[in-house]
Amino acid sequence: MTTAIAVNGAAGRMGRTVIETAAERDDVEVVVGFHASDAGEIGGVPVVGADEVPEALAEHDPDVVVDFSLPEAALGIVDACVEVDVGLVVGTTGFDDDGFDALEAASDEIPVLKATNFSRGIQVLLRTVTEAVGALDGYDLELMETHHNDKVDAPSGTANTILETVQDERDVEPVYGREGHAPREDDEIGVFARRAGDVRGEHELVLAGNDEVVSLSHRAEDRAVFAAGALDAAVWLADRGDGWHEFDEVIDAE
Amino acid sequence: MTTAIAVNGAAGRMGRTVIETAAERDDVEVVVGFHASDAGEIGGVPVVGADEVPEALAEHDPDVVVDFSLPEAALGIVDACVEVDVGLVVGTTGFDDDGFDALEAASDEIPVLKATNFSRGIQVLLRTVTEAVGALDGYDLELMETHHNDKVDAPSGTANTILETVQDERDVEPVYGREGHAPREDDEIGVFARRAGDVRGEHELVLAGNDEVVSLSHRAEDRAVFAAGALDAAVWLADRGDGWHEFDEVIDAE
Amino acid sequence: MTTAIAVNGAAGRMGRTVIETAAERDDVEVVVGFHASDAGEIGGVPVVGADEVPEALAEHDPDVVVDFSLPEAALGIVDACVEVDVGLVVGTTGFDDDGFDALEAASDEIPVLKATNFSRGIQVLLRTVTEAVGALDGYDLELMETHHNDKVDAPSGTANTILETVQDERDVEPVYGREGHAPREDDEIGVFARRAGDVRGEHELVLAGNDEVVSLSHRAEDRAVFAAGALDAAVWLADRGDGWHEFDEVIDAE
Amino acid sequence: MTTAIAVNGAAGRMGRTVIETAAERDDVEVVVGFHASDAGEIGGVPVVGADEVPEALAEHDPDVVVDFSLPEAALGIVDACVEVDVGLVVGTTGFDDDGFDALEAASDEIPVLKATNFSRGIQVLLRTVTEAVGALDGYDLELMETHHNDKVDAPSGTANTILETVQDERDVEPVYGREGHAPREDDEIGVFARRAGDVRGEHELVLAGNDEVVSLSHRAEDRAVFAAGALDAAVWLADRGDGWHEFDEVIDAE
Repeated sequence: MTTAIAVNGAAGRMGRTVIETAAERDDVEVVVGFHASDAGEIGGVPVVGADEVPEALAEHDPDVVVDFSLPEAALGIVDACVEVDVGLVVGTTGFDDDGFDALEAASDEIPVLKATNFSRGIQVLLRTVTEAVGALDGYDLELMETHHNDKVDAPSGTANTILETVQDERDVEPVYGREGHAPREDDEIGVFARRAGDVRGEHELVLAGNDEVVSLSHRAEDRAVFAAGALDAAVWLADRGDGWHEFDEVIDAE
Repeated sequence: MTTAIAVNGAAGRMGRTVIETAAERDDVEVVVGFHASDAGEIGGVPVVGADEVPEALAEHDPDVVVDFSLPEAALGIVDACVEVDVGLVVGTTGFDDDGFDALEAASDEIPVLKATNFSRGIQVLLRTVTEAVGALDGYDLELMETHHNDKVDAPSGTANTILETVQDERDVEPVYGREGHAPREDDEIGVFARRAGDVRGEHELVLAGNDEVVSLSHRAEDRAVFAAGALDAAVWLADRGDGWHEFDEVIDAE
Repeated sequence: MTTAIAVNGAAGRMGRTVIETAAERDDVEVVVGFHASDAGEIGGVPVVGADEVPEALAEHDPDVVVDFSLPEAALGIVDACVEVDVGLVVGTTGFDDDGFDALEAASDEIPVLKATNFSRGIQVLLRTVTEAVGALDGYDLELMETHHNDKVDAPSGTANTILETVQDERDVEPVYGREGHAPREDDEIGVFARRAGDVRGEHELVLAGNDEVVSLSHRAEDRAVFAAGALDAAVWLADRGDGWHEFDEVIDAE
Repeated sequence: MTTAIAVNGAAGRMGRTVIETAAERDDVEVVVGFHASDAGEIGGVPVVGADEVPEALAEHDPDVVVDFSLPEAALGIVDACVEVDVGLVVGTTGFDDDGFDALEAASDEIPVLKATNFSRGIQVLLRTVTEAVGALDGYDLELMETHHNDKVDAPSGTANTILETVQDERDVEPVYGREGHAPREDDEIGVFARRAGDVRGEHELVLAGNDEVVSLSHRAEDRAVFAAGALDAAVWLADRGDGWHEFDEVIDAE
């Protein structure tokens, strides 16, 4: 069975990657795209403007909408999704509290799955982080990520998620650099952001103590990894009822 | 409270490391060592020959015996340990079936903890391996270890343990090298042994698929890591009753 | 000034990448492509069949031809290149002796640059390999490469080039795996090929001895790195006279 | 032939390591040690107080003095070395200008070799850094080091040496951390100091651009690597005349 998908933010970098990635799979088909303004056709998929979303949903009847856009654009299609009772996979980040509330409210009526990172590898990495930090009590923790030189914020969202996962297990405070006299405190975690070339995204947590070092790391080879995960989530969500869902459930379902 | 420890194989490489490592800790004290023949004194600890073990146990009254020797030497002290009802931490490897049976039989009367690797980091690595291999279905697995150039067997015992842990989750067959026309089978796992310089011991499992790579790795900085773990096990075993114990229990107790 | 380029093997994986990469640069323009049979248009570039090459060269008048095809297809255009006196960048591999002779003969009349790897990073890695192997006499050497799971030959061509570079400095024999009783010989070099997921290409040489490890490594993030290097070579070759050229010269010219 | 060596700072951490390392070699013999105050015997070597240095030099007649102490202690033996015309290998760091001047003045009369790092691997790494930074014009550079959690200064002296080596080739400014809005400047180099566990010392320079990453790295397995290099330097210096020498010369001599 093929899951019919609509892509919100279709003309953006991730939107295009979702369309390309879907074209190589048999289990999904992108039937329509939405963008700020009419974008004609992308990869053979018709892309309509934001004001035509209700009509396009009615006409193309997708099973799930996958959204990689901006908070305002994402929230702009929520009502239309509820109207036609179609599930929503949200990859957009940066919502404020009102935005989150709106998504949660929608999840009372349609299935909503929101994730900050659709990589299965990252999700699994987070589980190993929880396992290792919990078991290696007293070991020093240091976190490093590397991304391309165009990334202007540091650390990456995924690094922050790893940090939060660590902090769920142990009370550590991040330091973002060391220079000069900088004795290490027991409850500190170094968090470093390398920016270099075209690196797609690397994250590493080291746990060191007792004359040994454990390292847990992840590397994305291509942005397609995130598109593939979002499509997996869409296929999975097509069979769910109303409610708020996490990407973790998609992985465990396999 | 200080745990009094006897070391079997005291004049060996690991035995000496146990004595040195214990000297820097407050929670343990090595009170006597045993070796094939009388070795005088090592690090201030009297080391008697194998034929004097019963008398030495009676005289020095250790809480636990830590053994890093050879199978024959390890089995040679089992009866004496049972006789005085002292627990036994076994780090020696290479027992045949009869040897294992003898250790198990002893565990009906005294606490016995046997491990092939006393590194807490390795134990935790194994847990993350189980987690990741289970969750990343279909990802390719490749295992690599690196050890000093004097190591004559390949792969390392720890690499074999990692392989077995992988195989508990997935049906994969190891290949130990690739040359020429060597298409990868879906159910194969490359297992590679680098031998170089003085490397203490590194192990890495990579899981790759879907445009991403997860890497789980461990590095020993020093043989002392294993001595420290064996001493932790001894302290823990001092409070146990008869039975067969695993190093995993020591970690979870913390 | 823009260098006009023809691409031989235009419909192949590398040919397409060359066309895509060129489209994002100002210093090059792909004016025509050749392939086994007429391929219509790729990325806006007309691609004609092998039998129309002479006419297409005359009509589109490229400054340089970039070839990523198969030996037979590469040799099939040499005469036509000589005829119109256009330089040839050869990225195709696998020529037999006769093929090499034909390319060399052509280099008496036109500029020919042949390389097995158009990555600047790999070329620089080779230089550091020469430097380090020469200076760290007696250190153990181990070479590892990792590529995607579709690669059927092992080790990679680039790994073989690194091995030859090592062998220019030191007399070492490769072993391609270790299993069971496998004591390391002083003059051996382990050469390991990992095959996993979608890895674009990694190579690492470690030099270990004397309680230290030096590691020299390279990772390709994308096939585009090779296209970019081939285009750099084409721009450079456009200003050269007849003769046989190496990619090293392109790097040093910068 | 065996080179007879005196060790200044014999009771310090590095001094002891030099004595231990020498005990395992045939080409050197430590005949006497000096320390702030009489330290009895270390590893079978008599260690006299600073005030007895002249007499001890006369009595034990070393070929070379190896110094791992503090600036004041190092300068305190210079006159005595000149007096008996014995060469001096200086591993002590932190001299002020007057201290340097004193050492240079001494080099008019005896052979003096001063180095901040006696690892052959680090010296070779520096050469590969020069090679790669020079050839990979425009690639982003990022430097990372990792040391044990007791190291209070950041970055390490060796990292600073690598940075200076980079700056000899390219005009880059170090940034020691990134947090929040931190766009990367073309002429910046990230310099990161991880502090974790018992890590002996790791340094890595990455050069990334053009969809590829080159990494040049070094790891010390043990402090003994530095002692071994200092002893190599001493053997080499025993055959030199007056003058100022660098560790690089020792490596090239092999």
